[in-house]
Amino acid sequence: MQKEVLLRCHTQILPYIHRTPIFTSKSINRMSKADIHFKCENFQKGGAYKMRGATHAVLQLTDVQRDKGVVTHSSGNFAQALSLAAKNSGCDAFIVMPSTAPQVKKDAVAEYGGKIIECEPTLAAREAAAKTIEQETGATFIHPSNDLNVIIGQGTAAMELLEEQPDLNFIIVPVGGGGLIAGTGLAAHYFGNACKVIGGEPFEVDDAFRSLKSGKIESNETANTIADGLKTQLGDTSFPIMQRYVDSIIRVTEAEIVTAMRLIWERMKIVVEPSSAVALAAVLSDKNRFTGKKVGIIISGGNVDLKKLPF
Amino acid sequence: MQKEVLLRCHTQILPYIHRTPIFTSKSINRMSKADIHFKCENFQKGGAYKMRGATHAVLQLTDVQRDKGVVTHSSGNFAQALSLAAKNSGCDAFIVMPSTAPQVKKDAVAEYGGKIIECEPTLAAREAAAKTIEQETGATFIHPSNDLNVIIGQGTAAMELLEEQPDLNFIIVPVGGGGLIAGTGLAAHYFGNACKVIGGEPFEVDDAFRSLKSGKIESNETANTIADGLKTQLGDTSFPIMQRYVDSIIRVTEAEIVTAMRLIWERMKIVVEPSSAVALAAVLSDKNRFTGKKVGIIISGGNVDLKKLPF
Repeated sequence: MQKEVLLRCHTQILPYIHRTPIFTSKSINRMSKADIHFKCENFQKGGAYKMRGATHAVLQLTDVQRDKGVVTHSSGNFAQALSLAAKNSGCDAFIVMPSTAPQVKKDAVAEYGGKIIECEPTLAAREAAAKTIEQETGATFIHPSNDLNVIIGQGTAAMELLEEQPDLNFIIVPVGGGGLIAGTGLAAHYFGNACKVIGGEPFEVDDAFRSLKSGKIESNETANTIADGLKTQLGDTSFPIMQRYVDSIIRVTEAEIVTAMRLIWERMKIVVEPSSAVALAAVLSDKNRFTGKKVGIIISGGNVDLKKLPF
Repeated sequence: MQKEVLLRCHTQILPYIHRTPIFTSKSINRMSKADIHFKCENFQKGGAYKMRGATHAVLQLTDVQRDKGVVTHSSGNFAQALSLAAKNSGCDAFIVMPSTAPQVKKDAVAEYGGKIIECEPTLAAREAAAKTIEQETGATFIHPSNDLNVIIGQGTAAMELLEEQPDLNFIIVPVGGGGLIAGTGLAAHYFGNACKVIGGEPFEVDDAFRSLKSGKIESNETANTIADGLKTQLGDTSFPIMQRYVDSIIRVTEAEIVTAMRLIWERMKIVVEPSSAVALAAVLSDKNRFTGKKVGIIISGGNVDLKKLPF
């Protein structure tokens, strides 16, 4: 992995993504005693940072591969992102979604031109369904997080953040499958100035915290968290990068997530999903560590069901 | 009134306000068939455009006046704005609020250092209370909308919008007391290129619509609108400016306001108050008029009680 790979990725995807703004909030700085810079990927195309990695992965396809399309399994933001990225490249996107996925998510994927294949709501069923599509159509499987091209693409959010704020002491991101944090780790390593990368994770799904402790990929027994984007598990591509480039994981309670989410909505006037609030919750839960520090937070996305808000 | 007055105002207030960003949304453009540029005053200090006018008014005080403070009656965004503007100038702000005002609004005023004086929830009571403060303290009364310095200050939002988008065909703003629309009318006249200013107003409080028809200031009998910032009435300073510089008023239903508000939250990922959504609701309710046109919308504010959302 070299610096040039990240730079080339950024140049390649730039025509297809937004260079999102960086926001600050005096009142949140006052509360946290830190100097926080929020990279607002909720304003990204498709409503989340996932568009970066999806676009990068699609742009690496050969002409022959592109003709046959791409396939993934996701009920979340990657489903929309891959649909949109594929459409931008004139290629089909087959999206395996659990039949139980909310209609609003299915609609969003359909709006971006993704072809939805429903399956039973288990990991085994969705992997099997994706495999079938691969075999039947010749489509290229692109994993939402455990894919090096996806990881590099996700790293471009931190690259842009560090371009504007080169002397960040920390970048904090939410951890689900590990794609964002692995990419952020790479970006901070190559473009930061001794910038540490920390993950925010709900206690309810603290597999990343436990994995970094034990040195092997751990699973979650339950997943009772409002941060529904973070229920996924690390993979064999994302985890080794995390082991090398991630400083630590801070775990937060559900109440801390809701408080942080509300603070962002009320003080910053932006719509963010619960997963995004986990990073600010981490900063607020460990104030001493960040007092007087310059902190970057990647607001991962803003796709939230307005009918099911926690406040 | 001259162009220079507006330019001088903008220069004066610039150190105290945010130059707010202008957002666009492909999906809202697709729906409306217009090219809409949203001036995001929800990101303004104090959470609303009111900070512009309040700051301008406070900056016109003499040293003697500043020593005695300012007084206004408002339960809304102007209360916070004047408190903050006064604090920035090292001066007291006496804020007359109805005793029935939500605690969250009182807290926000107190946070900015405003001194709250409670009164009965009638216009007569709040005017009397403000008059008493004026007499007792010598504070200068500053009306939330019917004050020329306030109006000129509010016009700077449109000035910034036109600086970035000089060829707007229309600017649409919500109409309450008329401060924002009067200032916008002046700005469009001096800095626009045949740019028409249109007000968005709920049918439930259509006093501005009726006032422009009849040629005199009309009142509202009822005020059953979710757009609580728009219940106020035009004044003898704002109304003549509106008569001269405002093209027309488009009225919208409560359902149209909620739909527009939801669109802005879901598609643009920003928190806006119902009053702000009235302008987009106006564009969507009269699509033919705006098809293919370049339209500016001033998002007036983002101060909303997250516990009382209409969706």
